[in-house]
Amino acid sequence: MTAPGPGRGTNSVNLRLYNERNLLQRLRRAGEASKADLARWAQLTNTAVGSIVQSLEESRLIEPAGRRQEGQRGQPAGLYRVNPEGAYGIGVRLDRTIIETVLIDLGGRIMARETHDQLLPHPDRALALVQQDVQRMIDRLDPLQRRRLTGVGLAQPYNLGAWLRELDLEADFRIWDEVDFGEMLAEATRQPVFKENDGNAAAIAELFFGIGREENDFLYVFIGAALGAGAVIGGESMRGSSGNAADLGLMPVPPSQLASAPAPERRWDILLSRASLNALTRHLRHHGIAVEGHADLEAQVQAGRPEVREWLDDCIDALVPSTRASLAVLDLPVVVIDCDIDSGLIDQLMQSLDAGLRAIAPEARQTPRIVRGSFRADAGAIGAASLPMFFSFSPRADLLRGRFHSHPHLQETANA
Amino acid sequence: MTAPGPGRGTNSVNLRLYNERNLLQRLRRAGEASKADLARWAQLTNTAVGSIVQSLEESRLIEPAGRRQEGQRGQPAGLYRVNPEGAYGIGVRLDRTIIETVLIDLGGRIMARETHDQLLPHPDRALALVQQDVQRMIDRLDPLQRRRLTGVGLAQPYNLGAWLRELDLEADFRIWDEVDFGEMLAEATRQPVFKENDGNAAAIAELFFGIGREENDFLYVFIGAALGAGAVIGGESMRGSSGNAADLGLMPVPPSQLASAPAPERRWDILLSRASLNALTRHLRHHGIAVEGHADLEAQVQAGRPEVREWLDDCIDALVPSTRASLAVLDLPVVVIDCDIDSGLIDQLMQSLDAGLRAIAPEARQTPRIVRGSFRADAGAIGAASLPMFFSFSPRADLLRGRFHSHPHLQETANA
Repeated sequence: MTAPGPGRGTNSVNLRLYNERNLLQRLRRAGEASKADLARWAQLTNTAVGSIVQSLEESRLIEPAGRRQEGQRGQPAGLYRVNPEGAYGIGVRLDRTIIETVLIDLGGRIMARETHDQLLPHPDRALALVQQDVQRMIDRLDPLQRRRLTGVGLAQPYNLGAWLRELDLEADFRIWDEVDFGEMLAEATRQPVFKENDGNAAAIAELFFGIGREENDFLYVFIGAALGAGAVIGGESMRGSSGNAADLGLMPVPPSQLASAPAPERRWDILLSRASLNALTRHLRHHGIAVEGHADLEAQVQAGRPEVREWLDDCIDALVPSTRASLAVLDLPVVVIDCDIDSGLIDQLMQSLDAGLRAIAPEARQTPRIVRGSFRADAGAIGAASLPMFFSFSPRADLLRGRFHSHPHLQETANA
Repeated sequence: MTAPGPGRGTNSVNLRLYNERNLLQRLRRAGEASKADLARWAQLTNTAVGSIVQSLEESRLIEPAGRRQEGQRGQPAGLYRVNPEGAYGIGVRLDRTIIETVLIDLGGRIMARETHDQLLPHPDRALALVQQDVQRMIDRLDPLQRRRLTGVGLAQPYNLGAWLRELDLEADFRIWDEVDFGEMLAEATRQPVFKENDGNAAAIAELFFGIGREENDFLYVFIGAALGAGAVIGGESMRGSSGNAADLGLMPVPPSQLASAPAPERRWDILLSRASLNALTRHLRHHGIAVEGHADLEAQVQAGRPEVREWLDDCIDALVPSTRASLAVLDLPVVVIDCDIDSGLIDQLMQSLDAGLRAIAPEARQTPRIVRGSFRADAGAIGAASLPMFFSFSPRADLLRGRFHSHPHLQETANA
């Protein structure tokens, strides 16, 4: 492969790889197809498709799926589909209050999971935990499966040490801003590590395993402890010059009207201080309702407490102009909404956001379709685990431009 | 060429075209280079580069630029540079109060210009004017030059019929929302017509002839009668699913504090009602200062009237959160500011925006570099004329993916 760099030349090796991945993506989306289907769709010759299908089948990424009679006469055409056991990915999701590691297959199924519900410890301690969990995942795979492990994805909020006041957390994570945990993990596990911020990783999970089967262009918004987001444009995840594209949580919003919110220090607050489950927890606590963990928070939502509605109104009041501003910039037709907890909350978020966007829609501009996310509380973990598969198997343009190694030691700076 | 469509296969014809354009872009940026320079830079073989350079020279897009001694011995290496006379583009800029047509060469030089300062007439009348102007441009070219004409670029605000209240205009342009002027123009002139909204076109002019020689990633903001903007990411212009990406003018902002502004109808106004020269004109008129045309407005700015500063403060007050929100979404390191008039106004805009962005910069996020645009009042016209050259000569990823015809009749829906 050529070295990364802007706008370099490209060659026939990249081209072949791109066409291979393109057909693989087509099979992932279509479910099953014959060689003739694929050749028609990709506008490649039957010979080219035959050779690609053969090598995809040899590498076990696809498998035969029976035969289908095409037309009146001749042999029925052989069909192919993606082999869910054709590849595996491990995902590590780090957040300020959780460490989660999962193993998934090419079908997106979670095969194993390890969770530590705790305030993020020192990076050395976190590494020891994660290294052990990753080893457990690898041990579950037999030798043949291990050869199809694409690597480890790491999803974490960037700048873990920041915005603790807005997130209502008493902790000191500044040490996390000084280490490169991806590099530490790559060294400790001897696996290629693919790193993205948590919002982009979850958006990539939707692109690879969820909404992306129907939509090539969407804004993804996840309401969790903080607020994560990602933008998918033309089937590619937008990364940004510092890996922080679609950083909706830091968009300027007017300060909250809730008495539970900290007094504003400046005229503009940031979105994650209002549109996050930490803001909901803070609001409940302000009204004397102590919340311990996710299950407890979900119970409060389910109980239909008026305080939940108060927070929701304030959340939407901030989310509507931020979403509208994001769409003005990105020009996307679909917004995907997902949330760490549900019990009706996701429906309420979707309905209120839709109504709010309609109310401020500028003249001559459509409002977007609001679509429900696919993974709820698993979005972060599946997002992390989808990274090595996405970067190994998606037909991204950077591949053609020779900007991307296919199996790097650490993937973070690939687009830098 | 293959038909447009998402994620199709690609072939060696596209690959060659991409590599050709890539080397051409390198020469445009580097000024001059030898074949060995180009081969090293693009990581292509000497044979491949030799063949590409030969065909670029045969088509007159590049020309010899003397020789340079490389190392201690051997023949001095032949150098090449872009031939400014290698291609021509015609640009038509339509706005609510002006119709402008220019002819430029591959060096970005304006060779001819026709301007009509008037409220946009009926599309049939506008077509008659523009057709005549385009013919005048073509008549200036000799037969050999005419063969190197890449086509006509059309830059116009989309939805010309909308936001007249915010833009302080008494007119009815609704008929313009019902016609496809690009198609009319392609039919009338029998030239390929490339259409973009005015903000994106001006951003493409910066990418192809201005800031783009140093920067691959920037947000472009133009304060004109309205507000136009564009986003350049990885050397490509962002288009959006409806051609309206970087539509900053429609971002939600709090209503203006100026007494001259129309009373707000809703809680959120749109940016172009505050950050536009029409808002400045309205504010001056409110204070009894009638302004007739650009020169007059520029004279008011030059006179240092306090009303200009009042508008500027209100403009920046809206522009700062909108720019910050755009950067949160796009993650770009540079903001390019340009304006229809100057006399110190652009410097004031740049300084005030910089100060405002620093004041609301969120924890752990850099403020962007603010850079002055290259073309001022000519941004729209050069933007329009750069469209046919940009789409004919830039190494865009869509080319590799077989999504783009190289010489379409009408280019507007290429990325749709």
